[in-house]
Amino acid sequence: MLLKVKTFQFSTGRPVAILNRGIAEILNVHISERIYVHKKNSKKMISAIVDILDCSKKTCVLGEKEIALSNEITQRLNLREGEFVEVKPQEKLTSSFLIKQKLSGEELSKEEIKKIIYDISHNKLTEVEIAYFVSGIYTHKLTDRELYYLIRAIADTGEKLKYKKKIILDKHCIGGLAGNRTTPLIVSIVSAAIDKYKLNAIFPKTSSRAITSAAGTADVMETLTKVDLSISQMEKVLKKINSCLVWGGSLRLAPADDKIIRVERVISLDPEMQLIASILSKKLSVNATHVLIDIPYGKFAKVSYNEAKRIKKNFIKMARKFNLKLKVVFTDGNKPVGNGIGPNLEARDIISVLTLSHSRPRGLEKKSLMLASELLFLSEKFSKKESKEVSREMLYSGLAFKKFLKILKAQDKNFSFERFKKLSLGKFRKEILAWKKGKIILIENKKINALARMAGCPSDRSAGIYLWKHVGDEIKKGQKILTIFAETKQDLDSAYEFYKKTKPVLIG
Amino acid sequence: MLLKVKTFQFSTGRPVAILNRGIAEILNVHISERIYVHKKNSKKMISAIVDILDCSKKTCVLGEKEIALSNEITQRLNLREGEFVEVKPQEKLTSSFLIKQKLSGEELSKEEIKKIIYDISHNKLTEVEIAYFVSGIYTHKLTDRELYYLIRAIADTGEKLKYKKKIILDKHCIGGLAGNRTTPLIVSIVSAAIDKYKLNAIFPKTSSRAITSAAGTADVMETLTKVDLSISQMEKVLKKINSCLVWGGSLRLAPADDKIIRVERVISLDPEMQLIASILSKKLSVNATHVLIDIPYGKFAKVSYNEAKRIKKNFIKMARKFNLKLKVVFTDGNKPVGNGIGPNLEARDIISVLTLSHSRPRGLEKKSLMLASELLFLSEKFSKKESKEVSREMLYSGLAFKKFLKILKAQDKNFSFERFKKLSLGKFRKEILAWKKGKIILIENKKINALARMAGCPSDRSAGIYLWKHVGDEIKKGQKILTIFAETKQDLDSAYEFYKKTKPVLIG
Repeated sequence: MLLKVKTFQFSTGRPVAILNRGIAEILNVHISERIYVHKKNSKKMISAIVDILDCSKKTCVLGEKEIALSNEITQRLNLREGEFVEVKPQEKLTSSFLIKQKLSGEELSKEEIKKIIYDISHNKLTEVEIAYFVSGIYTHKLTDRELYYLIRAIADTGEKLKYKKKIILDKHCIGGLAGNRTTPLIVSIVSAAIDKYKLNAIFPKTSSRAITSAAGTADVMETLTKVDLSISQMEKVLKKINSCLVWGGSLRLAPADDKIIRVERVISLDPEMQLIASILSKKLSVNATHVLIDIPYGKFAKVSYNEAKRIKKNFIKMARKFNLKLKVVFTDGNKPVGNGIGPNLEARDIISVLTLSHSRPRGLEKKSLMLASELLFLSEKFSKKESKEVSREMLYSGLAFKKFLKILKAQDKNFSFERFKKLSLGKFRKEILAWKKGKIILIENKKINALARMAGCPSDRSAGIYLWKHVGDEIKKGQKILTIFAETKQDLDSAYEFYKKTKPVLIG
Repeated sequence: MLLKVKTFQFSTGRPVAILNRGIAEILNVHISERIYVHKKNSKKMISAIVDILDCSKKTCVLGEKEIALSNEITQRLNLREGEFVEVKPQEKLTSSFLIKQKLSGEELSKEEIKKIIYDISHNKLTEVEIAYFVSGIYTHKLTDRELYYLIRAIADTGEKLKYKKKIILDKHCIGGLAGNRTTPLIVSIVSAAIDKYKLNAIFPKTSSRAITSAAGTADVMETLTKVDLSISQMEKVLKKINSCLVWGGSLRLAPADDKIIRVERVISLDPEMQLIASILSKKLSVNATHVLIDIPYGKFAKVSYNEAKRIKKNFIKMARKFNLKLKVVFTDGNKPVGNGIGPNLEARDIISVLTLSHSRPRGLEKKSLMLASELLFLSEKFSKKESKEVSREMLYSGLAFKKFLKILKAQDKNFSFERFKKLSLGKFRKEILAWKKGKIILIENKKINALARMAGCPSDRSAGIYLWKHVGDEIKKGQKILTIFAETKQDLDSAYEFYKKTKPVLIG
């Protein structure tokens, strides 16, 4: 069928062709299916994903026999407004059949997994197809071989860090824990030690934005510095100061994984196998040699003890295959770690720990010191005892704070202390007071996370929760338990409604 | 965040908001996620599904702080070009959590299934979410209770046929069999019998378009008459002539099911439970009382013998719960039934059987007579022997053909015999000749189906396959086995390539 081209000058990251409903029915194609678009009188053609409009009115942007093509198509086929293209339905992709096989419980081969990941990273598969792939992994898991191939394929389709040193440190938390912003502290402590003890090491830390939590490390760091660095910018920072704290998303280390995560987010899915693949593929991309994995577990955590054990087993197994020195640490995943939950609130916690403020969250401090010393010990440059001492030394001497400031400046030359003052808190606030005297028995992590999201996190940087008390603390009737911060009245109201409905705090 | 409205005058069947990549990143929303759109200075708001554009050029349709809204939104909020709306990310829907539960293997309650189906039929869930739901059903199946609730929920969210008689006949084939166009023949034979023997019955047959096959009954009927009737037009036809042969898609009998099927198509998925729900919900919508189900099974069919038995068991179980008289017939699903595969080719087969042409496909004739007599017997108006005799009488007296013409005319007042002549065959043709003398041992159904699709079916009506020989026939070297018809040289070439690669015919 011949259709007239409309170029709306839009890109969607993949070739998209928008058809009128009538034309789509004649071609027998539906949303998310594919058509071939041929340039007239030319051999050039491209496979495009279909989107459909119902243009009832004459004033509609798309005429009856017109087709709107995204820039990905018009540029490749060198098409102009008003030219004609030949369109026809396309057969399904091989990877689409392979995804069906996985969903049916069949094991995929190395080549088959490579094909799917290649097609995902090159935007050939739609979100719906990726959702089926994710479902297959979620319900049937992956065999060891499949998991190994998946990690390899994801890492191979992305960018790689070229700058190397003998020891490349990394750490990762499987997430889900409110206020657990240990990463900036660990990186500051450990990389201060790299400098002081002249280790032949780097700590190229990449982090994600919030997936299901109130804030990701990248969201928190972004309140203070630039985090969307390119890979060459990241290398410059590393050459200069041996460490960084950047957003993984702009580096394209594992574009297939980024797309898979985007589809998982839709129903907050986080399949165990995909989690391991996601983490390890990114570690491979930065050539990590020593990796620490933090798994917060528990009844109110993302994973139970049994799940944590299973995840650990798989991490260890894969690390061996990839020749990585890897340690898994189990931590308490039941209760929030810092005082603040939300981008600005968590940034404030980090600064208060690094500056040894009187009101700093001691739980966050303790956990960060523990993880930092585990990582230093893993590097084989210090004994267990030395690792602990060095970590404490770096924090309490102020060297870790100095290092943190160096990172902020190296990533954004415009950084100044003014940024610290700009860490405002939402002007709509609600204080939750103790309804009786007693001891805090429980602060439910998942509910606190959800509460912070209701209040506007992570997109509203100044929204979130401040915990005045932690589990185990004594409280008097009328004392503050927590404060909810929001940027709009509406968000505050819905967060408070949610609080009353879910009751995340228990006083015993 | 305040954004300026662009109305492109487009509809997508659901509320869609198109954002610029930059704005989407600030809001932390991704494709297929949802945002709330508030009209400024008004309490009106709507939940919209996000689509994202990368507008790099200044000439892009969408400015930096603009939002394009589909008609579903602009009409409900009464918005005009240039007005401002407030947008914010939306929390996930309850049904999104329920879908995750199903995918995790949990059983859903009546209310939960109702909620999901309501949200699907009201366009509240995206294709990605529906894909997760389908995956859940595919991998974990449904319990009897879940299946019952699902059928009920799908039927309840759709239109219902109001026109009733004491006996409402229906039939359905689970599909996947090439050239198996029995439906128009069965409807013609059985409804001719309704007229002749003055049964208090109707046969309101609705059919689908091709899902994974080369043509659906609706595609074939459309080559001869109008099939996209509204429910009131269908009722008029029934009042007049007691039967019809229309496309189910335009009736909105089960809109949730139509959407689910669309998502299944993407990777050619057809979960057993969804198949049963899909069929029975539509039978409930037309108040069917007596239903015949044809399950073609076998090694080269859509389902194996064991699957067929399981599907039968579920059909019988559900029919009892819904108080339906239902019979399941197992038929040979290994080899194509008619001579033609493809819309025009299958329409020609039907006419040749009804007009008792010398070259008519005897297999199709025999199978249609068998199924017609099974349905007549099921209606309890005839004995087994009478049912057979009546079916043969209707076909061989020409009454079935007369009835078929009545249906064609009732559905399209412009119908004339000219239509029969317009059933052209693709002008690009390739004949496949026997490479040796022998007996046809196998014609692989799935491959023949795929071959017809490669040739352009179902969108190219005159494309397809004509089988000169069937399984069991003797053949001499050089005799024609089959002809491939296509509308373009390119399609013919790719179909022929496919033929050579897959070798669907075996001579022994």
